[in-house]
Amino acid sequence: MASKFYLHKGLSKKVEQGRPWIYIDEINEYDGDYENGDIVEVYNPKGYFIGKGYINDRSKITIRIMTRNENEEINEDFFRRRFRAAWEYRKKVIDTSSCRFIFGEADFLPGLTVDKFEDYYVIQISTLGMDKYRDIIVKILTEEYSAKGIYERSDISTREIEGLEQKKGFLTDPFDTMIEIIENGVKYHVDLENGQKTGFFLDQKENRKAIHRICKDMDVLDCFTHTGSFALNAGIAGAKSVLGIDISQHAVDFATRNSELNKLSDRVKFECHNAFDVLPQWSREGRKFDVVILDPPAFTKSKNTILGAKRGYKEINLRGLKMVREGGYLVTCSCSHYMSEELLAKTIAEAAQDAKRQIRQVEFRTQSADHPILWNSDESYYLKFYVFQVI
Amino acid sequence: MASKFYLHKGLSKKVEQGRPWIYIDEINEYDGDYENGDIVEVYNPKGYFIGKGYINDRSKITIRIMTRNENEEINEDFFRRRFRAAWEYRKKVIDTSSCRFIFGEADFLPGLTVDKFEDYYVIQISTLGMDKYRDIIVKILTEEYSAKGIYERSDISTREIEGLEQKKGFLTDPFDTMIEIIENGVKYHVDLENGQKTGFFLDQKENRKAIHRICKDMDVLDCFTHTGSFALNAGIAGAKSVLGIDISQHAVDFATRNSELNKLSDRVKFECHNAFDVLPQWSREGRKFDVVILDPPAFTKSKNTILGAKRGYKEINLRGLKMVREGGYLVTCSCSHYMSEELLAKTIAEAAQDAKRQIRQVEFRTQSADHPILWNSDESYYLKFYVFQVI
Repeated sequence: MASKFYLHKGLSKKVEQGRPWIYIDEINEYDGDYENGDIVEVYNPKGYFIGKGYINDRSKITIRIMTRNENEEINEDFFRRRFRAAWEYRKKVIDTSSCRFIFGEADFLPGLTVDKFEDYYVIQISTLGMDKYRDIIVKILTEEYSAKGIYERSDISTREIEGLEQKKGFLTDPFDTMIEIIENGVKYHVDLENGQKTGFFLDQKENRKAIHRICKDMDVLDCFTHTGSFALNAGIAGAKSVLGIDISQHAVDFATRNSELNKLSDRVKFECHNAFDVLPQWSREGRKFDVVILDPPAFTKSKNTILGAKRGYKEINLRGLKMVREGGYLVTCSCSHYMSEELLAKTIAEAAQDAKRQIRQVEFRTQSADHPILWNSDESYYLKFYVFQVI
Repeated sequence: MASKFYLHKGLSKKVEQGRPWIYIDEINEYDGDYENGDIVEVYNPKGYFIGKGYINDRSKITIRIMTRNENEEINEDFFRRRFRAAWEYRKKVIDTSSCRFIFGEADFLPGLTVDKFEDYYVIQISTLGMDKYRDIIVKILTEEYSAKGIYERSDISTREIEGLEQKKGFLTDPFDTMIEIIENGVKYHVDLENGQKTGFFLDQKENRKAIHRICKDMDVLDCFTHTGSFALNAGIAGAKSVLGIDISQHAVDFATRNSELNKLSDRVKFECHNAFDVLPQWSREGRKFDVVILDPPAFTKSKNTILGAKRGYKEINLRGLKMVREGGYLVTCSCSHYMSEELLAKTIAEAAQDAKRQIRQVEFRTQSADHPILWNSDESYYLKFYVFQVI
């Protein structure tokens, strides 16, 4: 028998409405024994069933709901159903040649990320409760989704909170982890083993496509270019010249290889610079571009560092805006959940004022549709993406 | 000499930052005579030039800025430059066969709307100051933008605040005002003379396209269908069946003609119903659709009626959500500026709670790029558009 957890009076509403996380201080009492990682049942203060999920009392997020159906067992069939629903959804909304297949809480599988790169899969498990289902996940991907190979990238520090070690390696027979994918007509080398996160940021797929229309015949600067993705999309869309910059020489070399792969080397070039150094310098020197793209890493991963992050976003947007030719475009994003849409908008507005530029919003987008935003799971909304014309 | 207007201390900042409107109570004093409709100069309290614009002291929005360049005269050449900038921008960001060409304040031409339908143009002038430039506008559209015909649709009540009569009619030789356009592969009859606003709502162009991917093979209900545009996009994308409803029999007849024009009559049908009656009835009866689309008219056009509007949005979203099959989609929008993004989101969340449905956001969009949002002109942001998967 699964042990039963009862929530405090007045603290159960959000969970009942659909929030998949139960914090330790929302739990009033429990019946029955449990071990961390077990599936437990959650009830509201009146004793009505809310859902089943796995527990880990080492984490502030003590229980993560897996199902709200009392009769649903958490077993291999459960995972098969969840995977099928996730796959049907992706087939409907996105090019599935390479995409995020499972997006944790938003696919009702908390703690699990699965990215598909052609016929190879990268999985990331962040919690103890999900860690127990690794074999089932591998079995399903192999049997139902024709996985040629699966690699685990659970090399994330948050596992330590859960009492787990960081983990990385093959879950199938070894294979060449440097694979080639194609997205929006651009080819990429993707390094599943050593690339950032799971190897490639799939969440900007539709946003990269969205810059095509403004980049044709333009001089483009792509800051924080990483694997060169925005720069290469600008190139493939017909930009006159593209300069991508990144603080990491390894990223610059990788992006350069991607440029060669796409036969864009004559127009899409990469240089190793710290954007925080060269943006002020180049804007002082009066360097101008038709399109400036700012796709920085998350400057904040917690509430406590928001103010510092805001300064960072303001600085790069201010310098970026100054370098846009009149009538040109600024593409700017934040992938930090804690930098809310409202705060980011305020920061960009301040940067525009300081730069003495008027901005017209061409488009606002979020993360791609294969990273759906579950409305009762606030953390599932993180990527904000703007295109502005700069007057 | 243009008369000079000086703003109150502490009330000039927003205008200096770029807001194009100056309210009557922000004006401290003025030098020189003026007549309503004249171009006047605006200065901050310290006597620094801010901009030039036209005045009408009958309106709370007393001055609307046309330029922030002290040396720029407001004449035919000025209009030619503004039109060229607007046209270059549209060519960059949108299919220009039919599009909004001038979007008032956001194109730095307050009070003027120009919509292009193939080679025909519809203009709308809402202010006294802009009313004086009608002949110049007609001349430019004819000489530079190969207008085959221009029709004026200034039949809007807001002109009366400005002391102007409502006005409607040909500005060129008469032509057949029932024209045919094509958008996202869908053909439409557009009635420039008697259609709503300027004949067709161009602002959902990209949003209509955004529903294609979710509508294939689906049963679709399109509420408030008007000319049938979302329904027809669902049809052309391969929906199994589409039912469009509208309270106006005239709209239903018009949409039906558009369905015939696209040879979609077997799959895309229209019926005359009041959504507020049939949505509750059908949801009680347990009728289900794979996709429900809600594109209502603005339920509020002022701050004072927001609460009533919120009730309306909640009601249709609640009923709509209940009719979506598990795993299906809700497409929902608001075109009211006063129904803010935040308030709309809150309303949809409440509707989802009451409907006991979980929602995953697939996409969020605003008005199309030919209706750019000028960040210092809050009113230029009005259209919010969501696609949700409903669990």
